[in-house]
Amino acid sequence: MTGSVSYPVEPWTVREVGFSLPDLARHESIFALSNGHIGVRANLDEGEPHGLPGTYLNSVYELHPLPYAEAGYGYPPSGQSLVNVTNGKLIRLLVDDEPFDLRYGQVVSHERVLDLREGVLRRTTRWTSPAKRTVEVRSTRLVSFGYRSIVAIEYEVRPIDGAAQVVVQSELVANEQIPAQSEDPRAAAVLAEPLESEQHNVEDVRGLLVHRTKRSGLRVGAGMDHVVEGPDNLHIDRHHYPDSARITATATLDAGQPLRVVKFLAYGWSSERSLPAIRAQVDAALTAARATGWRGLLASQRAFLDEFWSRADVEVEGDDEVQQAVRFALFHVLQASARAERRPIAAKGLTGTGYDGHAFWDTEAYVLPVLTFTNPDAAADALRWRHSMLPAALDRARQLDLKGAAFPWRTINGQEASAYWPAGTAAFHVNADIADAVIRQWDATRDVDFDRAIGVELLVQTARVWMTLGETDGDGSFHIDGVTGPDEYSALADNNVYTNLMAQRNLLGAVDAVARNPDRAAELRVEQSEVHSWRSAAEAMQIPYDERLGVHPQAERFTDHVRWDFDGTPPQKYPLLLHYPYGELYRKQVIKQADLVMALFRRGDAFTAEQKARDFAYYEGLTVRDSSLSSCVQAVVAAEVGQLDLAYDYLGEAALMDLADLEHNTKDGVHVASLAGAWIALVCGFGGMRELTGQLCFAPRLPPALNRLCFRVMWRGQTIRVDVTRDRASYEVLSGARLELFHFGQKVAVEPGNPTELPVPPVEAGPRPAQPKGREPNRRKPLSS
Amino acid sequence: MTGSVSYPVEPWTVREVGFSLPDLARHESIFALSNGHIGVRANLDEGEPHGLPGTYLNSVYELHPLPYAEAGYGYPPSGQSLVNVTNGKLIRLLVDDEPFDLRYGQVVSHERVLDLREGVLRRTTRWTSPAKRTVEVRSTRLVSFGYRSIVAIEYEVRPIDGAAQVVVQSELVANEQIPAQSEDPRAAAVLAEPLESEQHNVEDVRGLLVHRTKRSGLRVGAGMDHVVEGPDNLHIDRHHYPDSARITATATLDAGQPLRVVKFLAYGWSSERSLPAIRAQVDAALTAARATGWRGLLASQRAFLDEFWSRADVEVEGDDEVQQAVRFALFHVLQASARAERRPIAAKGLTGTGYDGHAFWDTEAYVLPVLTFTNPDAAADALRWRHSMLPAALDRARQLDLKGAAFPWRTINGQEASAYWPAGTAAFHVNADIADAVIRQWDATRDVDFDRAIGVELLVQTARVWMTLGETDGDGSFHIDGVTGPDEYSALADNNVYTNLMAQRNLLGAVDAVARNPDRAAELRVEQSEVHSWRSAAEAMQIPYDERLGVHPQAERFTDHVRWDFDGTPPQKYPLLLHYPYGELYRKQVIKQADLVMALFRRGDAFTAEQKARDFAYYEGLTVRDSSLSSCVQAVVAAEVGQLDLAYDYLGEAALMDLADLEHNTKDGVHVASLAGAWIALVCGFGGMRELTGQLCFAPRLPPALNRLCFRVMWRGQTIRVDVTRDRASYEVLSGARLELFHFGQKVAVEPGNPTELPVPPVEAGPRPAQPKGREPNRRKPLSS
Repeated sequence: MTGSVSYPVEPWTVREVGFSLPDLARHESIFALSNGHIGVRANLDEGEPHGLPGTYLNSVYELHPLPYAEAGYGYPPSGQSLVNVTNGKLIRLLVDDEPFDLRYGQVVSHERVLDLREGVLRRTTRWTSPAKRTVEVRSTRLVSFGYRSIVAIEYEVRPIDGAAQVVVQSELVANEQIPAQSEDPRAAAVLAEPLESEQHNVEDVRGLLVHRTKRSGLRVGAGMDHVVEGPDNLHIDRHHYPDSARITATATLDAGQPLRVVKFLAYGWSSERSLPAIRAQVDAALTAARATGWRGLLASQRAFLDEFWSRADVEVEGDDEVQQAVRFALFHVLQASARAERRPIAAKGLTGTGYDGHAFWDTEAYVLPVLTFTNPDAAADALRWRHSMLPAALDRARQLDLKGAAFPWRTINGQEASAYWPAGTAAFHVNADIADAVIRQWDATRDVDFDRAIGVELLVQTARVWMTLGETDGDGSFHIDGVTGPDEYSALADNNVYTNLMAQRNLLGAVDAVARNPDRAAELRVEQSEVHSWRSAAEAMQIPYDERLGVHPQAERFTDHVRWDFDGTPPQKYPLLLHYPYGELYRKQVIKQADLVMALFRRGDAFTAEQKARDFAYYEGLTVRDSSLSSCVQAVVAAEVGQLDLAYDYLGEAALMDLADLEHNTKDGVHVASLAGAWIALVCGFGGMRELTGQLCFAPRLPPALNRLCFRVMWRGQTIRVDVTRDRASYEVLSGARLELFHFGQKVAVEPGNPTELPVPPVEAGPRPAQPKGREPNRRKPLSS
Repeated sequence: MTGSVSYPVEPWTVREVGFSLPDLARHESIFALSNGHIGVRANLDEGEPHGLPGTYLNSVYELHPLPYAEAGYGYPPSGQSLVNVTNGKLIRLLVDDEPFDLRYGQVVSHERVLDLREGVLRRTTRWTSPAKRTVEVRSTRLVSFGYRSIVAIEYEVRPIDGAAQVVVQSELVANEQIPAQSEDPRAAAVLAEPLESEQHNVEDVRGLLVHRTKRSGLRVGAGMDHVVEGPDNLHIDRHHYPDSARITATATLDAGQPLRVVKFLAYGWSSERSLPAIRAQVDAALTAARATGWRGLLASQRAFLDEFWSRADVEVEGDDEVQQAVRFALFHVLQASARAERRPIAAKGLTGTGYDGHAFWDTEAYVLPVLTFTNPDAAADALRWRHSMLPAALDRARQLDLKGAAFPWRTINGQEASAYWPAGTAAFHVNADIADAVIRQWDATRDVDFDRAIGVELLVQTARVWMTLGETDGDGSFHIDGVTGPDEYSALADNNVYTNLMAQRNLLGAVDAVARNPDRAAELRVEQSEVHSWRSAAEAMQIPYDERLGVHPQAERFTDHVRWDFDGTPPQKYPLLLHYPYGELYRKQVIKQADLVMALFRRGDAFTAEQKARDFAYYEGLTVRDSSLSSCVQAVVAAEVGQLDLAYDYLGEAALMDLADLEHNTKDGVHVASLAGAWIALVCGFGGMRELTGQLCFAPRLPPALNRLCFRVMWRGQTIRVDVTRDRASYEVLSGARLELFHFGQKVAVEPGNPTELPVPPVEAGPRPAQPKGREPNRRKPLSS
């Protein structure tokens, strides 16, 4: 169903040229706007045609029963699904009584441009109606970073080839008909009309709808206000119903004469606040937005983004496509997180309902590494969200007969919503990933208040879960059995290396955090004996090793399993999980996504360089990358072991996951973790950035195709720019004081105003590791001007 | 909800004395009658009150969608549920216009007797109506072993204390309202009214209903015919509707004067045959039954059972309760299987809808060992059923990317219906259990026709599945990874010892069968190289051993896992699966049911006596017996290793599972495998019978409580009686020729008419192994007259 449209390569914009119905849903995701609080898919202003209409508020979800043909103890009873809330971006148009609909009449031209510096989506469409009247519609849309609850649209229509009567209907519509989101008819029924009307009103050009979700009991208010400019014959009308509010502007326009509407939208929601409170909140936001005005909102948006790019931009010379992709990626990471403010960062952000709108371990393992170094306040907020969900995680641990916190595998509201436990709840590494994000946040910010209020408790409660999941056995080693690592083509294995190493980091991080915050530790009833047990377990952590092969098995017995018959697997059988049973995948050596290789990255301090090279080569031969989470990690480790060309190929895959729709599912929402992975591949891969020892380390090295890589990262309040060319790297403090860092293991002090340039040592790498037949990454051909 | 009623200990009967509403559902299962083709729960004649109304035809099921919140490749889309077909056992009664209902008025006396030699259920109830008229109802019910499609009831009512007008309504009722059988509302909806009317008719005293299941498309005909005897004022009326047919007999009876109704019921069903064909089939059966008459049916039933008991009876001296229990057990095993005739033997037989009426591996692993030695034709028929399901098993294997046959974990129609694959489809040992039953059947019967037509193909196709599930690894050993053994508190382990040893037997059995039937082998495209690969794999089969502990781990790494905290587990937390997540059970050493110990029994030839004792003692300490399938196997191995008292305790548990309702779920149907286990515990346990080497071996040894054990088994057409006392065993050929057997490893030839008596050697056993705290079997106190 996906067409072949690609986007022109431009440094700061992503552009759709021409109208293609089959690509509609993909474009809706690519051009979705969000500030982390509100998300609007790039549905056409006129609502139809659409792929999937979508307007989302972070954490506005509905509950639905999870069906089990054979239920088990501890299976979550309810699923959570992000709901499509009241659609306020609708501006319908009639031209001489005919609906403006790109499926009928003729599209003369159609273009949309996502401007990554302005933070707006611009649209220009010229259309000839079936009755042969041509009009041009121009609109500009933004979801404000500065005003968290505001969406604004500037909409202008003008007849081109003669006078026309135009009717512009600006609407709020709740309970839009959407394609079924679930195969379970009960869940589909719940989600078909999720909102119950509580109030509806229109006064003058301001309209309001207040609804409530039926089961989760969340109150959602949506308001719109307008500035309408048109000829003297302009007439304005208004209607409201339980599920819609509408302002209708009618005018007869001469050729070239515009009708312009600025629409301000405001959303407010709460599980607690009363109807009058929500209504007042929406009204206040509308009034503020109107006072700021369209130009004011545009200026605020630009200022926010200028500030963001000044500390976060990544410049790539030698591959303009990657240059565009990494900025697009950073923009979407920012959109998913900027104003999430103690709400989750979902796998698809707020760009679609893929994965039901749930957040996973991806947030901490892929997205927060980017945010901690480019937008540390957003990273802190994301961890504050996890912290706010601790009560549910403590309850879940008790339900599972564990101590401490067991965070959910997938969730919106903090409750576990995974209905397949072997690849869900059993993936306990999510707890260590959260702990790892806390440790990284501490190392990168030294934010003492965050550490006291948030960090120490997350570290202590996650440390506790490992002490009940694992056990010290007779020979004194600490082992963690029957858990699932990141690779979803294995499950329920003993001593998964990634899990154990991350648990080790978690335990030692808790030891340190408790030492820094003795009073908080006392409040959490941490005894000295408990701290001792964490340290002992960390020191005794079992890390299996296969002496015969000279590699680390992903988990115990992994390398004893038979290798997947890659040569006998035709291309159409990928992704494997759609064509083979879990049982066969689990019992063979075949890897969906980096797992041991993820450990080589995230716990690189636990491996020698030689071991990394051996392990990486071994796992390259087994990894099929049926997950979008894999290529960026493979890029990082490939770069570290000197396989720079291979790393570059993986970079291309990570960076273009959505822009090239590599997994054919961008229509469900963008892959926020893979987008973050584009940054990771560049900064941690070719920039060689690590912070595992609590110090900022670089080991930059470019692949032959790139001439220059320049990126900025924040470290303990300072911003540093790293500028890498073929043989030299330059470090410059952009803001802040003297900074110590490591360049290929050598300590360097960089003074403000005095960039330090250092040589890049040569690297020797063995032969390029082989991948499973047919699963090699595409050789990246740089696209450069 | 279960009351405390127990059954008086009698050698050949099971008796309910008095009426207890809370025990109704349990009695309905205990007193259920079946011939393996038709099953009727012991619902009261008058239909209400009831626990669960139930009339079943073997393999008459309905399909319903299996819901998955997260579906996966190869998950079965449809479940199958045994349906409650047209109820023909209803004989309602009104006394002076008041419904005879034991919930109202007063029950003066109530007794039901299941006669294990007559094969009938007799009922006598004396009841005083709310209007103070006392009547006595006597009924006798049978499901004919001799006439496969016939049920018959003799029903007599008489007023005791004065004249009364009685109305007897004999009915056929389809789509009875039943309590919801599924938690899934869609499945419940499907099963609420499973039958669609096709025809209904009453003529004279004969009625007929023909229905069809909606999704599975099975046509079911039910007919009734009557002999009514009463006073001259007897009046007969008739009605019929789509879902019911009714004959009403009205009479005014003097005190003591009877109204007697003999009701003949016939069932016919087919997925293929037309409505007229089914109707004719039912009519023919009714005509035959009427011609045979009530007395003729009784006589036929007695004759069938006399013959059965003559070759199958087990006599126990010293424990009358066990004596009763083992006969009750054999009776139910016979009921589940006698006329199943190429239909499955379900876990609950046809006594209830527990497990949806599905058949599991229990059939081959528990029930067929009994049948092969007591009713070999029924065992052959059960395997013919499996053989007839081969097309589905071959398809399933292909779906799972395997060769050969992958039989379903649970099924009625041959399709996999397990919705939780780690404890379902992954339990591939079911294939070896089927193969094992084939090999046993061959060894015990030397039935060449069966071998050619059925045996060789089952062996070949199951052998093939192991060759694709397993793999020869670098060191030359054949390993089978990621499968689930019998123990449901573990899953997806490598080299499960039971599975591997049974696969070994399967492979070698296929080698032998192919050698016996080269032409059949050629038809199955078995090449010599394939046979060679089976032999090689069998010889190289990996059997893990823990040198440190000196025991076999249940599977790789099992003994590396932490032991369950038995001491910290309170009694109310059992069964564990209702109180702990699978994940925790799987990663710890805790065993639901015999698994390695099952291997010690079913593959005793693969272990030394010393190893058996060590392994048994180790696993006793881990086994909590949360499954009814465990105690009989533990009894057998306990007896073999000389733990005779412990074996006796386990015998008690296996034998009384249903009569004492040990798991509080007999209401859902009797536990056919555990009932078979009572025989296994006696014959294979204290009788020490084995046939693993293809020879009939005994090593009898009684526990102190028993004075004598005498049982009969069939072997290659002969019947042999084994009579064991404290210190001697006598072997006698009851029918057939000279027979060779082994007594404690010593070859003995027994001539017809010349019983051979041999001494029982003394045994030395170590200390009694300990069980998990609180999970010790109850110390059995023999109940003897």
